[in-house]
Amino acid sequence: MSTPGSRFGVADLPLRDVLRGRSAYGAPQLDVPVAVNTNENPHPPSQALVDDVAESVRAAAQRLHRYPDRDAVALRTDLAAYVTTATGVPVTVDNLWAANGSNEILQQLLQAFGGPGRSALGFEPSYSMHPIIATGTDTAWIAAPRRADFSLDVDAAVAEITRRTPDVVFVTSPNNPTGQSLHPEEIRAIAAAAPGIVVVDEAYAEFSDRPSAVALLDELGDRVVVSRTMSKAFAFAGGRLGYLVAAPAMIEALLLVRLPYHLSVLTQAAARAALRHADETLAGVAHIVEERRRVVAALRDRGLVTVESDANFVLFGHFDDAHTAWQGFLDRGVLIRDVGIAGHLRVTIGLPDENDAFLAAAADLAPTGTAAATTSSGAPQ
Amino acid sequence: MSTPGSRFGVADLPLRDVLRGRSAYGAPQLDVPVAVNTNENPHPPSQALVDDVAESVRAAAQRLHRYPDRDAVALRTDLAAYVTTATGVPVTVDNLWAANGSNEILQQLLQAFGGPGRSALGFEPSYSMHPIIATGTDTAWIAAPRRADFSLDVDAAVAEITRRTPDVVFVTSPNNPTGQSLHPEEIRAIAAAAPGIVVVDEAYAEFSDRPSAVALLDELGDRVVVSRTMSKAFAFAGGRLGYLVAAPAMIEALLLVRLPYHLSVLTQAAARAALRHADETLAGVAHIVEERRRVVAALRDRGLVTVESDANFVLFGHFDDAHTAWQGFLDRGVLIRDVGIAGHLRVTIGLPDENDAFLAAAADLAPTGTAAATTSSGAPQ
Repeated sequence: MSTPGSRFGVADLPLRDVLRGRSAYGAPQLDVPVAVNTNENPHPPSQALVDDVAESVRAAAQRLHRYPDRDAVALRTDLAAYVTTATGVPVTVDNLWAANGSNEILQQLLQAFGGPGRSALGFEPSYSMHPIIATGTDTAWIAAPRRADFSLDVDAAVAEITRRTPDVVFVTSPNNPTGQSLHPEEIRAIAAAAPGIVVVDEAYAEFSDRPSAVALLDELGDRVVVSRTMSKAFAFAGGRLGYLVAAPAMIEALLLVRLPYHLSVLTQAAARAALRHADETLAGVAHIVEERRRVVAALRDRGLVTVESDANFVLFGHFDDAHTAWQGFLDRGVLIRDVGIAGHLRVTIGLPDENDAFLAAAADLAPTGTAAATTSSGAPQ
Repeated sequence: MSTPGSRFGVADLPLRDVLRGRSAYGAPQLDVPVAVNTNENPHPPSQALVDDVAESVRAAAQRLHRYPDRDAVALRTDLAAYVTTATGVPVTVDNLWAANGSNEILQQLLQAFGGPGRSALGFEPSYSMHPIIATGTDTAWIAAPRRADFSLDVDAAVAEITRRTPDVVFVTSPNNPTGQSLHPEEIRAIAAAAPGIVVVDEAYAEFSDRPSAVALLDELGDRVVVSRTMSKAFAFAGGRLGYLVAAPAMIEALLLVRLPYHLSVLTQAAARAALRHADETLAGVAHIVEERRRVVAALRDRGLVTVESDANFVLFGHFDDAHTAWQGFLDRGVLIRDVGIAGHLRVTIGLPDENDAFLAAAADLAPTGTAAATTSSGAPQ
């Protein structure tokens, strides 16, 4: 069948200059035996959760012909209860906002506080969507460095923020793809230097023992916001639910830029069902943390270097050619992630047998002649 | 319970200047006996559709812990089959794109083809989200006029486009909130004058007998795109599924700006279920069109003036004070829409008993001494 309009190419379109020659974001979605490349939670939902999602959607679908609650009050109330329990900070519905994945939350934040003539700063390597969403909202991107071991030097960060005066600062705790967390005291220091807002990206918070930056909101709520997601610890990547914990005024500001009715009745009903099963789902987080410790120890035994991780993934190396090593894993049926850091690759912690398959491949691929490493330095050599 | 950070106000935040003093978009969401204010389809989904949605979601939820198909290929394939049937133009998966409501489609189009230093033009009154999304993407908004009867003067439109050279032109067929459609030949004339892209918003296409602008894609696919939605004819407003029919290169361009994994597995599964029930759902469209004819005739009998409508709503007047009249309807349990057009209000066609309740209120509220109108002129007097 011919496809109408297929004779036109992207070069024929009046695309914005900034987008010309770019390629679309995205990890390869390949059909392989062991996919441990996108930091998903490897535990499938329980039958009880699946049933609750299906029956909640069945009930909500009776009104599919009507627009959803534009402000998702019931869902935000449930998220507030969860955040209160998880962080020990009593927050209310007025502190919560939700969207289709934390990417949409971050885009809304940049539409409200970034934009043309404004800038956003992040400490790289970090979540690669931060600069992409900045570009998508015409916010100038400022890449600031981390230490050679990928940890954040807070004094240097403060100095850089003071020098560059970004309108938005991204900090990550734990940081993807390297794994280290920050303490709220470090975030307070960063916020004190920031002339604009500080977005604390806590997508992987449940895997870490560090206290949440939510504790800072009462003191610093005019500057600090905390973005989170149900994709990781809640094993809800397919449901697309990101959320923000912030001062009520911040939520009011996002109402000015959010697309009306952005969250479907399906999303609202399914996310509420997933929150009802939080205890059961989050029990799996402890298993992932145990497996992470086992994987890290085994990688070090095989002479590889690992970066200290507080999340559900590990950055490891050192390879002379990371991309060739990535292909080596793939040839062995194990899809991991080449995040573009010289000598390093990132693996998501999977189920025990997936981790075994990964470790078997790693044993094959570990650089020969590498002495067994016992430190956690991940510095490029 | 105290709310952390509630002592801060929006004025304390480093909000972008363009947003200062604005209020959030949105029709009132009030609990009233007859809500005919947001152009929803009044027919609830059948039990068969509800069951199919629930069981499709149950199956998809087995993999909730995994990210969705980022490119929604199965859903786009099903949408292509529907568009082919509905328009008679054979389109393929490569002509289709989908997002969380047509608002997200329009935002992506403006991120790719609008933005700082660029402009978008629309013929007002029209869909109020067009200028809002333009502002949200820092695209300058150019408001061009319609005729006094709200129809589009194509010659004047061509002259205005030639004079203003907008990067994006919005045309609507049928136009919300006035109801008139355009013929593809008129859109061809507009596209011939447009230096950038022409977005044909066909949100209400199924209610109209006019051919779709999809027929233009093979000839004009480097300029013309057609946005549609499942919110209206498909009675799927709660499911949030907008889509775009365009040349394949246009879809490739949107991949550069879309947030990855924007469509959940829930949305993809539920929308596919709704498409399987298209015949049954769309049968309701004919009933709505019949009811629209009855409502228009009854309004004219009551001495009110109606604008010719090809959609599932009617703009009517003339009131000395439209907002007071709106409140009068609300006081009688009927929520309609004050769309900000002097002397006019918009009513969505509901179920027969809802329309009866609306017409009873209209009989109370029709300006006294107004002669019965038999023309369709909606010109402000």
